[in-house]
Amino acid sequence: MLYSEMSKEELEKELEMQKYVYEEYKSLNLALDITRGKPSPEQLDLSMDMMNAEYFSKGKGVLDYRNYGMLDGIPEAKSFFSEVMNIPEANICVTGNSSLNIMHDIIMKFMLFGVLDKGTPWKDQGEVKFICPVPGYDRHFAITELLGIKMINVPLNEDGPDMDMVEELVKNDASIKGMWAIPKYSNPTGTVYSNKVLFRMANMQTAAEDFVIMCDDAYTVHYLTDEPFRQLNLIEACKDAGHPDRAIVLASTSKITFPGAGVAAYAAGDNLIKYLIKLMGYQTIGYDKLNQLRHVNYLKNYDNLLNHMKKHAEILLPKFQQCDRIFEKDLGSKGILKWTKPKGGYFISIDTLEGCATKVVQMAKECGVAVTPAGSSFPYHKDEKDTNIRIAPSLPPVEDLKVAMHVLCVCIKIVSIEKLLEKFA
Amino acid sequence: MLYSEMSKEELEKELEMQKYVYEEYKSLNLALDITRGKPSPEQLDLSMDMMNAEYFSKGKGVLDYRNYGMLDGIPEAKSFFSEVMNIPEANICVTGNSSLNIMHDIIMKFMLFGVLDKGTPWKDQGEVKFICPVPGYDRHFAITELLGIKMINVPLNEDGPDMDMVEELVKNDASIKGMWAIPKYSNPTGTVYSNKVLFRMANMQTAAEDFVIMCDDAYTVHYLTDEPFRQLNLIEACKDAGHPDRAIVLASTSKITFPGAGVAAYAAGDNLIKYLIKLMGYQTIGYDKLNQLRHVNYLKNYDNLLNHMKKHAEILLPKFQQCDRIFEKDLGSKGILKWTKPKGGYFISIDTLEGCATKVVQMAKECGVAVTPAGSSFPYHKDEKDTNIRIAPSLPPVEDLKVAMHVLCVCIKIVSIEKLLEKFA
Repeated sequence: MLYSEMSKEELEKELEMQKYVYEEYKSLNLALDITRGKPSPEQLDLSMDMMNAEYFSKGKGVLDYRNYGMLDGIPEAKSFFSEVMNIPEANICVTGNSSLNIMHDIIMKFMLFGVLDKGTPWKDQGEVKFICPVPGYDRHFAITELLGIKMINVPLNEDGPDMDMVEELVKNDASIKGMWAIPKYSNPTGTVYSNKVLFRMANMQTAAEDFVIMCDDAYTVHYLTDEPFRQLNLIEACKDAGHPDRAIVLASTSKITFPGAGVAAYAAGDNLIKYLIKLMGYQTIGYDKLNQLRHVNYLKNYDNLLNHMKKHAEILLPKFQQCDRIFEKDLGSKGILKWTKPKGGYFISIDTLEGCATKVVQMAKECGVAVTPAGSSFPYHKDEKDTNIRIAPSLPPVEDLKVAMHVLCVCIKIVSIEKLLEKFA
Repeated sequence: MLYSEMSKEELEKELEMQKYVYEEYKSLNLALDITRGKPSPEQLDLSMDMMNAEYFSKGKGVLDYRNYGMLDGIPEAKSFFSEVMNIPEANICVTGNSSLNIMHDIIMKFMLFGVLDKGTPWKDQGEVKFICPVPGYDRHFAITELLGIKMINVPLNEDGPDMDMVEELVKNDASIKGMWAIPKYSNPTGTVYSNKVLFRMANMQTAAEDFVIMCDDAYTVHYLTDEPFRQLNLIEACKDAGHPDRAIVLASTSKITFPGAGVAAYAAGDNLIKYLIKLMGYQTIGYDKLNQLRHVNYLKNYDNLLNHMKKHAEILLPKFQQCDRIFEKDLGSKGILKWTKPKGGYFISIDTLEGCATKVVQMAKECGVAVTPAGSSFPYHKDEKDTNIRIAPSLPPVEDLKVAMHVLCVCIKIVSIEKLLEKFA
């Protein structure tokens, strides 16, 4: 029965029961964590073979990969990422263990040196703004906030960012210098941008000449129930649209092999990639090429990578299904929660009744279940409606996850009922 | 016989002979490279055992090192670098493969966010200057040049930077925000800063409150003929002097294990290290902890590290001795070259007669011997006297090095004689 159709008395009775259950859970002294998109130990075990010495003993390069040099990555790694990202090798740079690091550094460079050689540094252009599809990835927003870049929320629809709004904004405001984007299985909603949306992102007119799309393709092969597919290639689409240096696309093996010891890569148009690599040349003599070689020798190619990702999916999918089943069973008929059913990626995004998310997270915490703080998926941690919570089901074992989800559902019920009872007050 | 005491005719005859030898070498179509301080393949072979899987299978940390987290490094690595750098663990952060990267990033952060929480960003303070002991490391100077930081040359004396000059400069000019320093076996001279110099660096009065010493301790255990020794601890000395956040000290295993796949660490005072790690938290979730663990399990501790460095010295020393012998034999009696006799590190620094270095490098290049471009060891590549050339003997096999050095000596003779003949013109 929908809570919204219940009488005051029915709600009060339900509240009493849920509170009883909550106290029961509290007595268990739980310590469960579903805050971050960490792979589970079982997933990490999938790649342990890579650490055998044989996986870095081969290489076709002329340089000794153990030594300095090869700033933009070893040829084998460039070739691998070229196939995975569907972007020519000449437009790719393979780096260290973190695409977040690369994104941070690139925006720092745009601040201090501008976009492309003749660009004016963003620091010298007064207020600088970024478009942020919401909900989105907290670490993206943290970088733009740190740099004092004003963030403009744009709703993330079923098929990607609201492009009517984006086009209108960027056409008229030259201080909007860029936008964040996660085109496939977006964090935290699991949204897949449609090719139409990607096409509009490549083709839209921007008042700023130095407008860039920071396209974090973190989950490009992270399928759960989906069949593998390619999206419109944003680098190519931008080139075709006459905006060859608009997009920077990033990928990494953090959730393919090891989050702590993976390899990241980024791609950009002909001029922009050269410019960024030139600036990178002041920063480092080169990244860890042995780890690049280890990765390529182990992951081999795109087809083999997809097989590898299937094994991840076999571990991850039961956890996502568990969450979905529990939401359906506990809350499906109550009308107090919307949740996503992602076909890939690492997160489930839920929306409570308005004004409930913060209290739900707080109650769960007091019951020993750590959930990402409410508002985390929004710039400045401000979720105006206070509805959104990000669920990260990947790390805990299925049994722990089950308990955590039940606790969360109880919290959602209690806070929702209290909210609904306000109208009788 | 000193060239300066030769008659015009004697010089002309000597020139003719040396040109004959030069043409002979030219006919060999050499392709030798002594430009950069790269370890040789034999040195890289010393650490290959580290790549066996066993070297990352152990760890006392509570977190799974394969996963995200532990921004400031694994406890084992912090403990290791604490012993090596002689600095408390709480003041140390262990990172990825490149201390250059860390130095670049720290200065970028000072530009955009200032030194320490309440500091004014350097970008908002008008002209910013840095003291550069010369000759010095070209990649340091490249970073400050890139950021538009004006570089002030200070001579590097036998015992370190000319501290009378440094003290006078920093006392009176608040726009001088920092200085570069390589305290042990400085690149390229091999200079070891005396404890007195280090003490003065820690104690001097600076007009700028946000003055920092970027202390690149790249060669801290890179002994050749020296016995291992500790210098005055700059972090501690700065603390004692009441300037607890003045110094940042960096170390790395690039020339201990693998330049491409090593581990770097940096240390700073209590407040500054916290500030820098906080800012690093926007940049990355963590560095490659498996590589950190691999390194610590392999290198074990300071004593074992010193044994390891002895093996490096056994490979490197004959190359340094070769250079010294050839300079002595070919040029010792001519009075046209000064060269350093470093007790550690990676470089020999030579000084030709004034106005000769550029031509020497050019002639060597035309004869198939690549030497670091003249002026490289000076800010803006400007060696006013045009005398300094950096020799990097580490990479080539001894036999190749021998040929390269003889060619270089012939070039030095020819250019020097032509210079001396000018006075007869």
